[in-house]
Amino acid sequence: MKGRVGIIGIGHGVFGRRSDATVQELAFEAFRSALQDAGIERDAVDASVIGSVPEYHKQRSLAGVVQEYLGLNPKPTWLTEVACASGSAAMRTAWMSIKAGVHDVVAVIGCQKMTELSTPEILALMGRVGEVQWESVFGTTFPAYYALFAKRHMHEFGTTREQLIEVAVKNHYYGARNPYALFRKEITLEKALVSEEVATPLQVYDCCANADGAACVILASEERARALSSNTVWLDGMGSATASMSVLRRPNLTGLPSAEAAAAEAYRMAGISAADVKVADVHDCFTIAEIMAYEDLSFCAKGEGGPFIADRQTYIGGKVAVNVDGGLKAKGHPIGATGVSMTCEIAKQLRGEAGERQVPDADVGLTHNVGGIGQYCFVQILRRD
Amino acid sequence: MKGRVGIIGIGHGVFGRRSDATVQELAFEAFRSALQDAGIERDAVDASVIGSVPEYHKQRSLAGVVQEYLGLNPKPTWLTEVACASGSAAMRTAWMSIKAGVHDVVAVIGCQKMTELSTPEILALMGRVGEVQWESVFGTTFPAYYALFAKRHMHEFGTTREQLIEVAVKNHYYGARNPYALFRKEITLEKALVSEEVATPLQVYDCCANADGAACVILASEERARALSSNTVWLDGMGSATASMSVLRRPNLTGLPSAEAAAAEAYRMAGISAADVKVADVHDCFTIAEIMAYEDLSFCAKGEGGPFIADRQTYIGGKVAVNVDGGLKAKGHPIGATGVSMTCEIAKQLRGEAGERQVPDADVGLTHNVGGIGQYCFVQILRRD
Repeated sequence: MKGRVGIIGIGHGVFGRRSDATVQELAFEAFRSALQDAGIERDAVDASVIGSVPEYHKQRSLAGVVQEYLGLNPKPTWLTEVACASGSAAMRTAWMSIKAGVHDVVAVIGCQKMTELSTPEILALMGRVGEVQWESVFGTTFPAYYALFAKRHMHEFGTTREQLIEVAVKNHYYGARNPYALFRKEITLEKALVSEEVATPLQVYDCCANADGAACVILASEERARALSSNTVWLDGMGSATASMSVLRRPNLTGLPSAEAAAAEAYRMAGISAADVKVADVHDCFTIAEIMAYEDLSFCAKGEGGPFIADRQTYIGGKVAVNVDGGLKAKGHPIGATGVSMTCEIAKQLRGEAGERQVPDADVGLTHNVGGIGQYCFVQILRRD
Repeated sequence: MKGRVGIIGIGHGVFGRRSDATVQELAFEAFRSALQDAGIERDAVDASVIGSVPEYHKQRSLAGVVQEYLGLNPKPTWLTEVACASGSAAMRTAWMSIKAGVHDVVAVIGCQKMTELSTPEILALMGRVGEVQWESVFGTTFPAYYALFAKRHMHEFGTTREQLIEVAVKNHYYGARNPYALFRKEITLEKALVSEEVATPLQVYDCCANADGAACVILASEERARALSSNTVWLDGMGSATASMSVLRRPNLTGLPSAEAAAAEAYRMAGISAADVKVADVHDCFTIAEIMAYEDLSFCAKGEGGPFIADRQTYIGGKVAVNVDGGLKAKGHPIGATGVSMTCEIAKQLRGEAGERQVPDADVGLTHNVGGIGQYCFVQILRRD
C-alpha cells in the first residue's frame, strides 16, 4: 500500500437536541471548525464523504444537500450507510480514496438529526435494523438484543449488574467534563441501579441516548499532511469486518465476532498489539457493549470485562483509558456522526489537547465502532509521530 | 495511481415487479451469476459494496443482510447512497479500495426493491430528493424538474416533442431485445405522442418506470484480473462531480454541470475523447435527460441533442450507440441497481457478447449515471485490451 493517511483537522459540534440547526447546518458547523483547526481553506478540500443513516431525515439524499451547503460543488461526494457505524465507513472509504491516489484532501463528515421524526417513527425504524424476516418480528429491539448479550455474559462469566453500571458511572464522570456531551452530569451507582427497567437486566442508565450532532475530520495524503500540518495524527490501522445479522447464527452471545476480526486486522496493519493502546473510544450503546469491547479488543481476557471496569482499569490512570469523552452513553449517539466523533476525540488525545480529560503519554489510540447488533465493526488505530 | 482495475465478472437479474424475491435474494441472483461469469468461487471475494437507496426497503441497514445472505461474513461491506447514482458510488468506492491496495477482488452489488412500499409512500420519498427546505414544498417532483429542463431546452434550441419521444422509441426498440428488461415491446412515435400528460411537456412515454432488480460486477486488481480472467474489461476513467441541489442556483436549465465535469475528468483519466466512445449507457430517467446527456458528454454540440436522436445517430450504426439495452426507459430503473446494470451492459458489449444488440467494434464504452436532479453524476470509461 501507498503512504500513510493523516488527520490534519478535527471539528465537533455539541451533541443533543439541536432544534437550532438543520442537519446541513450541523455538518457545516463541524466542517468549518475542522477547516479552522487544519488551518486550510475550503478550496483545499478535494471531496467529501458523508456518514449518515438517511432515513431519519426528512430530506432525502443528504450528501447533495450537505455538499452544496458546505460550498463544495462541483467536487465529488458520497454517503455511506452501515447503521450506527456509518461514520466509520465514511472514514474508511475516505482513507481508501487517499491511499488510492484519487484524492489528496478529503473531509469526512458524520452528521445526523435524530429528532426530526416522532418517537414512534424512530422506534419503528430502529426495530427494523434487526433481521426483519426472522428476528425483529419477535420483538428483538436494540435493548432486547443487548439484554440477551448481558444475560449470557452474566451467566457464563458471573458479570454483575454493578459491574455493568460501573461503565455508565465512568462514562458520565467523563461526559460531565466534555463540553460537547449531551449529559454533562455525574451519576452514582446507587441511583443508576434503581432506574427504570428497559429490557432485563438493562435499566435506563445502561442505555445511550439518541442525539443530534455532527463531527468532521480532514484527512490528507502523507505528502499533503506533512506540507499542511505539524500536528498530524496518522491512521495507521484500519480494520473492518462483518457478522451475521441474526444473532442466532453467531458462535456465541458474549462478544461480537466482527469486532474481534476487525481488531485483529487493525492491529496487524498498524503492527501493534492491544497492550500498546493508551486511549480508546469504543461503542458503548449499552453498558454490556463496552464490556464486550474490552474483551473483543483484547484489553482484557474473555470474561474479565466486568472486573476490568470494577477495578477502574479503563479510567485515566488504568491500563487503557476508554471513553473518556463520555462515550455514546453520556456524549449521546447521533448515529452517523459517532464514528467521526470518536476519531476526533482520539486525535485530540494524541495531540495532547484534551484538557482535564487528557490521558498522559497518549501516543497510540483506538476507535471501535459497531453497526447494528454487531453485523458491522470498524476498528481504527491512530498514532502520532 | 497504481495499476488498472478490471471487471472480471458480471451478473444481472430480470428487472420488473419481482414479488418472487426479497432484495437479498435479488442480490444473490446477480452475485451468483457474476461469480459463475468470472469463474471464481465466493471465497475469492475480499469485500462487497452495496449500492442501494435504503429507505425503499422495510429492512433497515441492507448491507448486513445482503452480506450474510451472500455468505460473505466476516468480510467487510459498506453501502453507498447518492440517490439514483447509488450503484455508481458503489462502483467508485470499490474501484478505490482496489487501487488503494486494500482489497484485491470486490463484488459490487446494486440492488433495489421499489415495490415493498405503497405508491403514496414512494411518491412522498421521491418528492423529498429535491431540496426540501426551498423547492420540493412547491411541488418540484422529479417529472416537474425534468419538465423544466425540457421546456427550457425546447425554448432555447428548438428541440421538439417528436425528438424527445424518439429517445423513447429507440430505447423501447432495444429494450424489446433485452431479456432483462421490464418493457420488452416496441412503441411508435404516434402512440407515445398521445399518451397521458405527466408534467408538460412530458408524457407517460417520456418517463422511465420504477422496477425491482439487481446487478453485480466483480472487480479485481490488474494482477488478479490477469491471473483470473482472459476476458477483462478495464475501468480506465472514473469521473465524479456534484452540482447544487437547487436548480435555481445552476448556471442554466439545459444541461447538468455535474455531468460535464464528471465526463471531463473521466475522459482525461482514460486519455480519450468523446469521439472514441463506441457504446454508452446514459441516465435516461426522462427522454430529455438522454438528450442533455448527449450534449454534456460531448457526443454532439450543445443544443443539437434533438436532431442527433432524430438522425438516429445513437442507434447501432450511428456515431455512438446509446442505451441499446433499453436504458432506464425500457429496462426499468431499480435505482440502486442502475449504475451497476449499466456497467454490466457496457462490459458485455466490449466483450462482444450482446447478441442481436451488439455494437460492432466496441472497444471503448461509457456509463453516465445521475443522482437526484443532477446533484451527482458519475461517468465511467470502460476499455478492452
